[in-house]
Amino acid sequence: MAHAYGNLVDNTLYQDFTKVVNNHYTYEKGQLTIGEGDMLTEYESCLYCHGTKVEVKGLVTRDTDYGELEFPDLEGWPNQGVGRINPDGSLGACSSCHTRHSFSIEIARKPSTCSECHKGPDVPAYKVYEVSKHGNIYQSKMSDFNFTEVPWRVGTDFTAPTCAACHASLLVSPEGEVIAERTHQYNDRLSWRLFGVPYAHPHPIDANLEKVVNSQGLPLAVELNGEPVAEFVLSKEQQLENNNRMKAVCLTCHSTQWVENHFKRLDNTIHTTNRMTYQATKILSDIWAGGFEKGLPQGENIFDEQTERMWTTIWLFYANSSRFASAMAGGGDYAVFANGRYQTTEQLRKLLDQLKLYRALEEKEEVEK
Amino acid sequence: MAHAYGNLVDNTLYQDFTKVVNNHYTYEKGQLTIGEGDMLTEYESCLYCHGTKVEVKGLVTRDTDYGELEFPDLEGWPNQGVGRINPDGSLGACSSCHTRHSFSIEIARKPSTCSECHKGPDVPAYKVYEVSKHGNIYQSKMSDFNFTEVPWRVGTDFTAPTCAACHASLLVSPEGEVIAERTHQYNDRLSWRLFGVPYAHPHPIDANLEKVVNSQGLPLAVELNGEPVAEFVLSKEQQLENNNRMKAVCLTCHSTQWVENHFKRLDNTIHTTNRMTYQATKILSDIWAGGFEKGLPQGENIFDEQTERMWTTIWLFYANSSRFASAMAGGGDYAVFANGRYQTTEQLRKLLDQLKLYRALEEKEEVEK
Amino acid sequence: MAHAYGNLVDNTLYQDFTKVVNNHYTYEKGQLTIGEGDMLTEYESCLYCHGTKVEVKGLVTRDTDYGELEFPDLEGWPNQGVGRINPDGSLGACSSCHTRHSFSIEIARKPSTCSECHKGPDVPAYKVYEVSKHGNIYQSKMSDFNFTEVPWRVGTDFTAPTCAACHASLLVSPEGEVIAERTHQYNDRLSWRLFGVPYAHPHPIDANLEKVVNSQGLPLAVELNGEPVAEFVLSKEQQLENNNRMKAVCLTCHSTQWVENHFKRLDNTIHTTNRMTYQATKILSDIWAGGFEKGLPQGENIFDEQTERMWTTIWLFYANSSRFASAMAGGGDYAVFANGRYQTTEQLRKLLDQLKLYRALEEKEEVEK
Repeated sequence: MAHAYGNLVDNTLYQDFTKVVNNHYTYEKGQLTIGEGDMLTEYESCLYCHGTKVEVKGLVTRDTDYGELEFPDLEGWPNQGVGRINPDGSLGACSSCHTRHSFSIEIARKPSTCSECHKGPDVPAYKVYEVSKHGNIYQSKMSDFNFTEVPWRVGTDFTAPTCAACHASLLVSPEGEVIAERTHQYNDRLSWRLFGVPYAHPHPIDANLEKVVNSQGLPLAVELNGEPVAEFVLSKEQQLENNNRMKAVCLTCHSTQWVENHFKRLDNTIHTTNRMTYQATKILSDIWAGGFEKGLPQGENIFDEQTERMWTTIWLFYANSSRFASAMAGGGDYAVFANGRYQTTEQLRKLLDQLKLYRALEEKEEVEK
Repeated sequence: MAHAYGNLVDNTLYQDFTKVVNNHYTYEKGQLTIGEGDMLTEYESCLYCHGTKVEVKGLVTRDTDYGELEFPDLEGWPNQGVGRINPDGSLGACSSCHTRHSFSIEIARKPSTCSECHKGPDVPAYKVYEVSKHGNIYQSKMSDFNFTEVPWRVGTDFTAPTCAACHASLLVSPEGEVIAERTHQYNDRLSWRLFGVPYAHPHPIDANLEKVVNSQGLPLAVELNGEPVAEFVLSKEQQLENNNRMKAVCLTCHSTQWVENHFKRLDNTIHTTNRMTYQATKILSDIWAGGFEKGLPQGENIFDEQTERMWTTIWLFYANSSRFASAMAGGGDYAVFANGRYQTTEQLRKLLDQLKLYRALEEKEEVEK
Repeated sequence: MAHAYGNLVDNTLYQDFTKVVNNHYTYEKGQLTIGEGDMLTEYESCLYCHGTKVEVKGLVTRDTDYGELEFPDLEGWPNQGVGRINPDGSLGACSSCHTRHSFSIEIARKPSTCSECHKGPDVPAYKVYEVSKHGNIYQSKMSDFNFTEVPWRVGTDFTAPTCAACHASLLVSPEGEVIAERTHQYNDRLSWRLFGVPYAHPHPIDANLEKVVNSQGLPLAVELNGEPVAEFVLSKEQQLENNNRMKAVCLTCHSTQWVENHFKRLDNTIHTTNRMTYQATKILSDIWAGGFEKGLPQGENIFDEQTERMWTTIWLFYANSSRFASAMAGGGDYAVFANGRYQTTEQLRKLLDQLKLYRALEEKEEVEK
């Protein structure tokens, strides 16, 4: 059911990015060229979390305690990425969270488990959780929690939510009244896709993103000015529906005003961080327009040159950190100093300074002629 | 009692900094301008830890299980920042450490709780603690500790200090002899303000910093060459007094020589890191003097341009990390490679290289004329 | 037995590095000069982990509860670095892992203890462990583990390895069959030195590196093109032997194919990260050749200028992170976004851009003449 593999591997834009990050570089005669990649690197980098495509390449014979036996020789193995494509074509790996053999609900409910893929700096969810009040209480009181009870009773089995509590678990009141239905569709309670590329946007309607395309033909659910492509994302009404499912969880401990004001701040932060990404995008556009680096207008890779990388870091690390800090009430640091607004604004300034440097050097060349 | 709100919001220099980090930027016609800020951003960034000003804006009516009821409509809510200004004008939020409802002493004594506001990179106290011997032993043995006993018996209730043990708790020997009186004035046992702006300096006398001003008229307890402003900071005698209160805690487990040598290293590190900040300040002064960026001499914001940001990062992240690593015997990494001396010296070199680049580009322009 | 002190302090190249990082800088008349260092800084930075040389300077008299007593006055104390040189000339400090007094095997077996010296960014072993499946399971199930049983029974006493399990402990099957002999020679089960300077290379034969020298006369076990110096490092056969000792541990839980494919990925990552370091080294060589910075050809410090620092960061932080992530199956983030391949490739591009900038500014100067 998880589409993390295809959403990465079949997206031409994301493949441009992966190529820049994972492929082999060669420096020769003053030039740096990006060459081929290799699957072993992919397996332990992007696909470590997104999941590999596991295929039977053939059979191998091994000596065992029971004599010679044949074993399938697997490509893409081992892997526990959530979007793994299994040899039978099925999608997903339960073992991402419910580790093998024990298939433990306890492990899946404990937040350290989620840190395997959600620690950052691109998705600092676990880091933010750790410094949040929820994380603080969890750290102190977890030995008093009951991590195996199903359904999970808020306030009885646990007194601070873990990742699973807010995003997945079947939650009931101490009296057994259902607060949130169990889901393994992790956006059921989410109205926004915080980790948008390059802007946060309403959550996609379909988890399979293969048809997503914007007006410029890019495989993105947003335009380059930040406008979501309505056709592929939740409507305001659907966002509200998802958000209400999340709020039902919040309201088991917090007052209406607390919860409303929390999400008002998140909406504001989505708006302001997207706005910052947009300013960065405008500077990058001027850099492309001046021909200082080659990107969209030139039909070239938009991730491989210096300011393109600076731009990427703004939305991938800094804007995301600020948004995760906001979404999970995770403290001042991830909102400001730990890859937050401090770095966003510093990088924006450096981006412009680099454009100015490109121009100054260009003028010099012209003077020389 | 906590003055974290006013010390930030009423300090014009800090507000210049906040503006640069939190306000909205607009890129238009090749220029980047810093516009207005917004309170929702402040609430979840700086004021998240410093505390908000909570005010009753009016009343709102809500449907409840008990019929329609009126509720106060609060500005700046929710917030658990330690310097929160409450609707009745009182200062402080106990819930920063003693989380709501349970008002737990156990939670307040566990170091993960402190990480909400003291993780870094500006104040990496918790990170340093984690890798210190104290933190190592805590991680291994905490399930054997007694976190609720009052007074707290050193060596009986716990065998490695947590943040609270050194900074706040009433500590007694196993026989009940008082080692340290309880305090919630967190500088009672501190002789230095490690997180100085921009230099570490003897701790301020008064927690309320509104009157602090240096000879240049800046609201700082130090001059720009690192000299503390005697009037506002502890005298050598007062520093000794505070330090002796801390040493009494150390001496419950460590020998005299151990403790003396520890603080000798800290004094040295305060001296050497301040010295590095001073070299950076001198480079920045040359940049200002050359008119390459506009700061103090021009009466402009000293935080908003490229090398001003580089300078800020030196003292705010790197010098602080080295000092916290020293103060808490927290391992080589935070003293060197994790935002420590490695980054300090690298940044100092880059700062000078940027000055040279400014000069090279200026000469070019002159040649062109 | 541990040679961490001498391997650092007696290596002239490493001392060049330490000098750049730890010594005092002075900015005067537009020049930044590196002055003297001081031992107090060394004690709490590099030597914190490597170990200090503890020496008796004399005797001091102190008032005690038992009257006046004489105590040795120690230089380099306190310290628990693993390579500590003790006053009697013996090497090593058990208390690095087995903390003082309790001499606890439990503490030494728990991974947080190792974080004191192996957290990063140069050696992010603990960070990688935390987000690995091993670390996830440890976090969830450690309260069910038996940390004091000797020998340590795999699957009975613990169900996920800690650092000690893979690198040091005497491991047996539930039936008591020996899987791995106890060792305190931490490379017994290691075929590679991942943290190579500047390339990962087969583990050195002798823990004492004082005789190591490459064909250029540098005290390194590799040439500057990445080729190991055969004389000083394990042969392929010896590597296999060490690796087999490690694999025996892996195979207690994992299948042959799982284990073989894991190490195939690690070999590939060592190859590709070394290859990246080599491209960076070639760019730096061109920078030296152009005289833009002064390094090997000029017989000067190779760590003190801007691109020399950028080059250092590539192998010291980024290549190492990718390798540790690979070695410990530690998730996508440390392989990619958290000081991994994302930063490697970005830095490589910046390194070349800086060379281009140097050239552009040089041409300008020539035009001016």
